[in-house]
Amino acid sequence: MDLKKALSEKAELIEAHLSKIFPSVPYEQKSVCDAMRYSLLAKGKRLRPVLFVEFYRACGGKDERAALDFACALEMIHTYSLIHDDLPCMDDDDMRRGRPSCHVAFDYPTALLAGDALLNLAFETMLSVECDPVFKVDTASYIARMSGISGMIGGQTIDVCENGILKDLNELKTMVLLKTGALLKAACAGGCILAGADEKTVRKAEKYAECVGEAFQIRDDILDVCGDEKKLGKKTGSDEKQFKTTYMSELGYERCEAEIRKLTDEALFVLNDFDSDTAFIKELTLWLTDREY
Amino acid sequence: MDLKKALSEKAELIEAHLSKIFPSVPYEQKSVCDAMRYSLLAKGKRLRPVLFVEFYRACGGKDERAALDFACALEMIHTYSLIHDDLPCMDDDDMRRGRPSCHVAFDYPTALLAGDALLNLAFETMLSVECDPVFKVDTASYIARMSGISGMIGGQTIDVCENGILKDLNELKTMVLLKTGALLKAACAGGCILAGADEKTVRKAEKYAECVGEAFQIRDDILDVCGDEKKLGKKTGSDEKQFKTTYMSELGYERCEAEIRKLTDEALFVLNDFDSDTAFIKELTLWLTDREY
Repeated sequence: MDLKKALSEKAELIEAHLSKIFPSVPYEQKSVCDAMRYSLLAKGKRLRPVLFVEFYRACGGKDERAALDFACALEMIHTYSLIHDDLPCMDDDDMRRGRPSCHVAFDYPTALLAGDALLNLAFETMLSVECDPVFKVDTASYIARMSGISGMIGGQTIDVCENGILKDLNELKTMVLLKTGALLKAACAGGCILAGADEKTVRKAEKYAECVGEAFQIRDDILDVCGDEKKLGKKTGSDEKQFKTTYMSELGYERCEAEIRKLTDEALFVLNDFDSDTAFIKELTLWLTDREY
Repeated sequence: MDLKKALSEKAELIEAHLSKIFPSVPYEQKSVCDAMRYSLLAKGKRLRPVLFVEFYRACGGKDERAALDFACALEMIHTYSLIHDDLPCMDDDDMRRGRPSCHVAFDYPTALLAGDALLNLAFETMLSVECDPVFKVDTASYIARMSGISGMIGGQTIDVCENGILKDLNELKTMVLLKTGALLKAACAGGCILAGADEKTVRKAEKYAECVGEAFQIRDDILDVCGDEKKLGKKTGSDEKQFKTTYMSELGYERCEAEIRKLTDEALFVLNDFDSDTAFIKELTLWLTDREY
């Protein structure tokens, strides 16, 4: 399988759907709408929406359109969190996905509102999906929990309030499990819930997401030390400059790689229990945890 | 009827329910959670949640618990919008409801995340209401539309991007209809939708909300010129200082009062078409448009 080609085709499908469902608004609201579109349609891996659709299929889901709607809503949540994370009062990052961050390309208030509007639009989108109302509510409810104070925002809280300097590896793990892991759970387990999977399967998808989320973050920490700025589309070395607690600062390179291998094996093992074909998810898992950007 | 006593009893009911449904989170996420609670539980008129419950009842709704859940979600959306509006990059207001704004009492990133988390929590709350899933989805979907880029955020966009200096009275009306009117529509028409009201009734509730929203804003503009700072809990004269386009700057005091009277009459007229008792809503309408704070 040519993984990169397959992934980029799937990402294009997501992007086409994002463009299609993006609302048109009167001229007066244009500036914030342009900012939403700028960030949402910037080239990205589209990891979360792709995983959502793949897990939906792996659980026998057949309503491609409903899955794509939910997948796009997830990407909106991910994008809003990036816009707000990049703001001067947060990480103050000028670049994102190889081009100026939203508040640099537009301005501070426009970026703030664009983030708010994307989070809101994610729920508008989920609530208007044409599918069984019970599955819809269950899936949207799970995604809401994973993206809120008990999930992703909980992780951002730990990150921001400790200024990135955490007590120990345990606190780092808790932060990563929430900040990165929760939205991956929303993708993997969310896809299963929409397909009507049983509790046991949903738990397995959650386990997969937790392992991949942590491995993904360890790779991120490695890349911030050893990565290629051109390939990454952003500056490296920022963690060290800010004295941040990272897997690299706590474990060093060798143990980081060993930890990634362990987590990847666990993630792949869990996938064996799914009935449908998970060949693509397996390839994707290997690439994600071993990627160069 | 002692309107102030009745309103404050209803507001207390909302506040008690807000406290009850507020989630408890692990210690690590405490700071943002404290900030959410600080802003959400600050004394307020609780206008939107009270209107939601009243219109729900006026349409024959019987499930008090479900109505309160939705009403509280609306108050979360209103509160998040105030927190973000007060931020230094937006209106930069240090005081809110007679005490330091969220970003002053806590800090900038905590206030940003508390706003995000409240918007998210609003949807978590709506999605987990125990009621008919179709009514739940219809109501949450309507509220989402009213609070997003086509509603409240659309109004904030016009306000922020023009720096408060609008072309003319028409642009001011459009802005107010969205920034203030949309969330009042979410309250009034949202309550009707949850109660299963027909399309015609929902449109009437929308008309009521539009009239009250505009009258409310005109009163706000008057109070910013002629109000008592102590009663208001905030400084007056800020619109003029910022050269903002307001009803006062466009119409002057006499025509503002005439406009309020006209809008109030229209709002009261619409209420006649509701089957159930709307005596409280009528009294509230008169007080809202004639209030001193």
